[in-house]
Amino acid sequence: MTQPIDIRPATGRLGVLTPGLGAVASTFIAGVLAARAGLTVPIGALSQMAHIRLGERDEQRNPLIREFVPLAGLDDLVFGGWDPISANVLEAARTCGVLEERDLNAISGELESIVSMDAVFDQRWVKKLDGHRVKQVTGAWDQAQALVEDIERFRTENDCERLVMVWCGSTEAYQEVSDVHLSLEAFEAGLRSDDPNISPSQLYAYAALTCGVPFANGAPNLSVDLPAMRELAQREGVPIAGKDFKTGQTFMKTMLAPGLKARMLGLRGWYSTNILGNRDGEVLDDPENFKTKEMSKLGVLDTILQPSLYPDLYGNIDHVVRINYYPPRGDNKEGWDNIDIFGWMGYPMQIKIDFLCRDSILAAPIVLDLALFLDLAARADQHGVQEWLSFYFKSPQSTEAGMPAEHDLFIQQIKLKNTLREWMGEEPVTHSEA
Amino acid sequence: MTQPIDIRPATGRLGVLTPGLGAVASTFIAGVLAARAGLTVPIGALSQMAHIRLGERDEQRNPLIREFVPLAGLDDLVFGGWDPISANVLEAARTCGVLEERDLNAISGELESIVSMDAVFDQRWVKKLDGHRVKQVTGAWDQAQALVEDIERFRTENDCERLVMVWCGSTEAYQEVSDVHLSLEAFEAGLRSDDPNISPSQLYAYAALTCGVPFANGAPNLSVDLPAMRELAQREGVPIAGKDFKTGQTFMKTMLAPGLKARMLGLRGWYSTNILGNRDGEVLDDPENFKTKEMSKLGVLDTILQPSLYPDLYGNIDHVVRINYYPPRGDNKEGWDNIDIFGWMGYPMQIKIDFLCRDSILAAPIVLDLALFLDLAARADQHGVQEWLSFYFKSPQSTEAGMPAEHDLFIQQIKLKNTLREWMGEEPVTHSEA
Amino acid sequence: MTQPIDIRPATGRLGVLTPGLGAVASTFIAGVLAARAGLTVPIGALSQMAHIRLGERDEQRNPLIREFVPLAGLDDLVFGGWDPISANVLEAARTCGVLEERDLNAISGELESIVSMDAVFDQRWVKKLDGHRVKQVTGAWDQAQALVEDIERFRTENDCERLVMVWCGSTEAYQEVSDVHLSLEAFEAGLRSDDPNISPSQLYAYAALTCGVPFANGAPNLSVDLPAMRELAQREGVPIAGKDFKTGQTFMKTMLAPGLKARMLGLRGWYSTNILGNRDGEVLDDPENFKTKEMSKLGVLDTILQPSLYPDLYGNIDHVVRINYYPPRGDNKEGWDNIDIFGWMGYPMQIKIDFLCRDSILAAPIVLDLALFLDLAARADQHGVQEWLSFYFKSPQSTEAGMPAEHDLFIQQIKLKNTLREWMGEEPVTHSEA
Amino acid sequence: MTQPIDIRPATGRLGVLTPGLGAVASTFIAGVLAARAGLTVPIGALSQMAHIRLGERDEQRNPLIREFVPLAGLDDLVFGGWDPISANVLEAARTCGVLEERDLNAISGELESIVSMDAVFDQRWVKKLDGHRVKQVTGAWDQAQALVEDIERFRTENDCERLVMVWCGSTEAYQEVSDVHLSLEAFEAGLRSDDPNISPSQLYAYAALTCGVPFANGAPNLSVDLPAMRELAQREGVPIAGKDFKTGQTFMKTMLAPGLKARMLGLRGWYSTNILGNRDGEVLDDPENFKTKEMSKLGVLDTILQPSLYPDLYGNIDHVVRINYYPPRGDNKEGWDNIDIFGWMGYPMQIKIDFLCRDSILAAPIVLDLALFLDLAARADQHGVQEWLSFYFKSPQSTEAGMPAEHDLFIQQIKLKNTLREWMGEEPVTHSEA
Repeated sequence: MTQPIDIRPATGRLGVLTPGLGAVASTFIAGVLAARAGLTVPIGALSQMAHIRLGERDEQRNPLIREFVPLAGLDDLVFGGWDPISANVLEAARTCGVLEERDLNAISGELESIVSMDAVFDQRWVKKLDGHRVKQVTGAWDQAQALVEDIERFRTENDCERLVMVWCGSTEAYQEVSDVHLSLEAFEAGLRSDDPNISPSQLYAYAALTCGVPFANGAPNLSVDLPAMRELAQREGVPIAGKDFKTGQTFMKTMLAPGLKARMLGLRGWYSTNILGNRDGEVLDDPENFKTKEMSKLGVLDTILQPSLYPDLYGNIDHVVRINYYPPRGDNKEGWDNIDIFGWMGYPMQIKIDFLCRDSILAAPIVLDLALFLDLAARADQHGVQEWLSFYFKSPQSTEAGMPAEHDLFIQQIKLKNTLREWMGEEPVTHSEA
Repeated sequence: MTQPIDIRPATGRLGVLTPGLGAVASTFIAGVLAARAGLTVPIGALSQMAHIRLGERDEQRNPLIREFVPLAGLDDLVFGGWDPISANVLEAARTCGVLEERDLNAISGELESIVSMDAVFDQRWVKKLDGHRVKQVTGAWDQAQALVEDIERFRTENDCERLVMVWCGSTEAYQEVSDVHLSLEAFEAGLRSDDPNISPSQLYAYAALTCGVPFANGAPNLSVDLPAMRELAQREGVPIAGKDFKTGQTFMKTMLAPGLKARMLGLRGWYSTNILGNRDGEVLDDPENFKTKEMSKLGVLDTILQPSLYPDLYGNIDHVVRINYYPPRGDNKEGWDNIDIFGWMGYPMQIKIDFLCRDSILAAPIVLDLALFLDLAARADQHGVQEWLSFYFKSPQSTEAGMPAEHDLFIQQIKLKNTLREWMGEEPVTHSEA
Repeated sequence: MTQPIDIRPATGRLGVLTPGLGAVASTFIAGVLAARAGLTVPIGALSQMAHIRLGERDEQRNPLIREFVPLAGLDDLVFGGWDPISANVLEAARTCGVLEERDLNAISGELESIVSMDAVFDQRWVKKLDGHRVKQVTGAWDQAQALVEDIERFRTENDCERLVMVWCGSTEAYQEVSDVHLSLEAFEAGLRSDDPNISPSQLYAYAALTCGVPFANGAPNLSVDLPAMRELAQREGVPIAGKDFKTGQTFMKTMLAPGLKARMLGLRGWYSTNILGNRDGEVLDDPENFKTKEMSKLGVLDTILQPSLYPDLYGNIDHVVRINYYPPRGDNKEGWDNIDIFGWMGYPMQIKIDFLCRDSILAAPIVLDLALFLDLAARADQHGVQEWLSFYFKSPQSTEAGMPAEHDLFIQQIKLKNTLREWMGEEPVTHSEA
Repeated sequence: MTQPIDIRPATGRLGVLTPGLGAVASTFIAGVLAARAGLTVPIGALSQMAHIRLGERDEQRNPLIREFVPLAGLDDLVFGGWDPISANVLEAARTCGVLEERDLNAISGELESIVSMDAVFDQRWVKKLDGHRVKQVTGAWDQAQALVEDIERFRTENDCERLVMVWCGSTEAYQEVSDVHLSLEAFEAGLRSDDPNISPSQLYAYAALTCGVPFANGAPNLSVDLPAMRELAQREGVPIAGKDFKTGQTFMKTMLAPGLKARMLGLRGWYSTNILGNRDGEVLDDPENFKTKEMSKLGVLDTILQPSLYPDLYGNIDHVVRINYYPPRGDNKEGWDNIDIFGWMGYPMQIKIDFLCRDSILAAPIVLDLALFLDLAARADQHGVQEWLSFYFKSPQSTEAGMPAEHDLFIQQIKLKNTLREWMGEEPVTHSEA
């Protein structure tokens, strides 16, 4: 039996701040409010629904995760955020059209009372959007400070004992890491000189970490996946996690690729196309923003399949990812995959998958889990990249050690659960009780 | 570091006997011969292709499984079998049409030299087939003895040090366990009285175990999944495994169901239909035989999803499985799945999967792995049900202990690999090196 | 220029009677009421939406059909019907779940006021349904007379100048034409002797024709597709049409099969499966009722493809049709088709179609068109089978002449429009103005 | 009975010249040779396989088209062509990989003997290809003359009584009609001044028409869809046809769109994506060439659906077409369509189509039909655009009269057959024999 680690109890209120109060954030908030009112159960959230097995299989110890680890309760959550377009969460929910009117009715008052703070927004990074609820502050440094003030004002006004921030905003135009990102010193100099390589999502991340607020990154933007931010997280003792919520097609990929590999079936090609009709689709219709998303989506196969170890099976893969803006789809998303595999004696087979999914429905419980687990990590004094939360991300950040992060959904799941077991002083599960 | 167990070395020749020399067996044999001749690599076979990680991730110890555990080599295999229809393996391969002529050419002589022994066959169990290469022996007891003689003659004539048997024959008509199956004594009495509940596949299993030959069951027939056979396997000290090769649609199901559950997404229904045009499809066109297969396929979801633990998510599932004989598909198989899931706030989503697969191509490497791993188990003095081989089966047999067998492909894989690690004195992998 | 025929004007009210007030009839009625209230347009109804080209292409004469031929207007329709389960149309609409509450709200009063008459119902023909709003009359003759009284009472009470009847009830168990169906005399004798081959749908048809009410048959039941009924229709001078509304998969088939044939592409197999979760699915889950539907669906390919004329292309087709009851689908239906075609040098190709359709949404406008066009035919003194309405049926009845009815959707459409043109004294369109 | 027109008999040999001896042309030639040798039947070719109904339905007159109109026979065809890459047709067939070796064997000698003439090729128009079998002539005028010489040499050497040319080469980069295309005079001046708007396919078309050779255009290039070429065709009395063979996805679209419209079902969006892995896919991977193809594919829906006549149904359609180069698909092509339709009361439905097709297999019989029908037209003294051949084209050229060409596959088919009936003095078929 290992020794449990010290975790401070989850007393008081926990503020959840989301840059971006659009489809994902409004769906997340509405669902928590509805669950709080007993109108629904929080489907999709491990923190609320999942059990965790402890000990041997025949011990029959299977508590809920939320009864096993000291998480903040749904009743303790307070919501806030920034948005360049919608005035409040009710307006956002109605605009995006994810939830039906009958599901919004019972909680419409609460939703309306969550008013957006003016956003730091720059159309240079998201050409297809036109923000009008935007801070009238210029200069990166001053914008960051304005966000810090927003955070602290929210903390005080809402009497929060702790805060977490989860990025629910748009995908920004593609960028590589540049000099300004390589150290905290360089970054802060860049803030002052208005370095063009500093994007809005970096300002939010910087503000959060500066205030000691854990940050999770739901988009493929660099944000906290930068040396400067890792340095700041370490200095402030703050846990971070990213990047890009693993929802529809990549979620599917990280189920199937491990399965094909488990059976040593070869892969010759994987063609993925998506059609989506919401604001997200519009943003990604710009090649610059699509590239950011494409990079995030393409990484997954190589890491799982290990072509260098398995050249006969995975050494020659054509992996194509496309996203198309198609308004009739609305907020629903449709992902179509064609997978060309081969087996015994090289004979080819094909798998076609059509996933009629709903992006925000899949993302909302991830926001909840990340908020609660990052808060748990903070109370457990875990700093920097939380690799055990890779489970939630298309393009998981790795710790500084240099090993690539794990993409296999099932290994990620074991890692998540074994981390919780370890923190609580339980043995890891090995499935070897033959 | 745990202590390795004793495993006798894999010296001499290993005979692989298959009741049924049809599409699966002929494809298996052709592929091994082609691999032996350097014409192909044995794709899909863990025993040949897979690496196994040892120690921590950064130790970079990843030997091939076949270099880690002492398996028989492909060059040491000898093939034999029984078939009611085809005279030899070349004829079988040409009839079933799985492999193209150009792939058979280089090895046609060897294939032709593997001549079918006359089968024990009874049309009562497989109405749609009409066997003509059938033993002229009547009475179950005498038929079993005739099989024993076949086995021993094969052993001698081919100078085999060890044998294994893998059932590659048809699905038999549905039956429940009956009195005659409850003990070895009852079974042997039943053999003598020609009990109508004893099917041909049970005669093969009985003959194999009597001769000390490990038996793997590739069909959903009861065969060795009977108390009488477990007793016999224990008495003779023989490892057994079953049942029903996990190839197309169920393979897919045991990837996706664990993934949906990992994410706590609800499941409302799963409709699966298959079209296939070969002898297998013809056999399953009879409702009695289809029922055997249906039962095997239906079990998988409940075991993985644990509806009693997750009533909100998995308490109300309509699971429908259909198989249709459709001659244009030939030996190829097509499985179409519609999966109705639901997420956050109960919103529904759909997944459609069309798997254009090839049954025999997926089954052949399983035959190879089971032959080699059962032989390994025998040399390691492992008796009875080998639950670590559940990885290969639609409807895995559990050990006597009473726990249901694991259906989750990924847990099965961990169990397989951790069993090998344990036998060789290596630590299990827990993926918890956070 | 041909001479127009005499058509009496559409004065007064037209009563539309539907045996069966379930999903189809309630959706039909709701849509007409909503269109009348200006809340929707009657999409799918040629009688309301379609234009018809007159003369040469460059004459630009394209009136709406309803402005070209004298149809009854939507405002003149009155609705009635029989149902063994639902008390009124609002209850029926809510039970079947086709239309959303928000679409029923504005017309709920009107829907509720349309009260079901007690049905003639016999579970022998529809095992899976349990009717409780059923006439307490026994004996076929008396039941038929009770229906005649219902019809005449409805006519009087609602001040209808004319009536039409459209069968919207369930599929009955399979039957072949038997002696009792061969002449009107035999049929009426059978009514009196309670012949077991007379099904409820035949009683409705008999009652309608006896009252001079045109009858359209939306199910694959024999109903008016019987010599006795054709004789009666002729004697009473009543137009009839049938059978089985062409909605989802067969609609698709009669588009694609003509297209493949247009291009002289070969067909090797067509596998169709359907999943549906409503009352219709439940009824068809019984093999006897499924057979009736299967027969109706299977006929379509041969008639279109002419295998005797094209043995190389269509002489060897495996055509399989399956229907599966799958409750998660609700009133929506999903049809999945796999089509195996071959082209130049015999090379095979495949087409897969997944049609996420809604049965009642597709059927409702057909009910409207048939009601209005049959009424038109009656006013134009057209008696017997209206082959020009084949466009609407899976298994169109042919006229007595012996030629098989046309199944090709596009030829059916031309026939429908050219019939209207002819009646109105316009030239048929030949598309040959090269 | 109308009067038949004069058609000269099909005596002597007919030379078929194809600019481009790649996948399509080699498959076409191989299939004709194989049919000539009795090894296959020319599936997909109306000129060889289709019957045509004459008179009323009950007259039972259904001759084969080739017995009804005086077409050249397969034995009279001689093949030739130009290609920048392959040396002869056998090499082309092997490179493209459409046909299996076993189908090439019996005719390999004949295929090898058809040697490519050096091509007029300019990488400016097809960036992704690198031609090396290219004429060493510079200047558009001289290149055109060199092609004229090729044509006349081929005619003499092969003793051809008549010739036709069918473009089977690549899609060129996008261009609009420019001044140089507006008259024959301007075009010939442009040839002399090497106008950059004159593409290679225009040189072939010019050369063909100058030599009195009918020209059909299988690609979306402008080629003969230019005022200058129409003028030349008229002056020389030559029939022409185009453009862009209607094979996979557009073929499907022109079946389904007329069917949806026949039933007055609304259309909200149509998303089409293609994956293909051959030279064609590579060429279209360049945005300039893709645009040419995209324009050709996008036109089809509007023309069929008449949004101005049906604004409620077709006034707001999102039509998206994508093509992706995906090498694992090889010469096979896969087209995936998602179609969003709506019906009664506006309720949405979806159709998904996955067409696993083979481009060259679908295109080859079109080449044959066009060659034979254009030759027929020439012997019937038909000049200019042959609108009755629209049946074969994605983007049919219209006659000068200004009416848009017909896209509906079924109307195109009627027009084709009624044109033949008219030429032979038979009545058009109207399907109105009610």
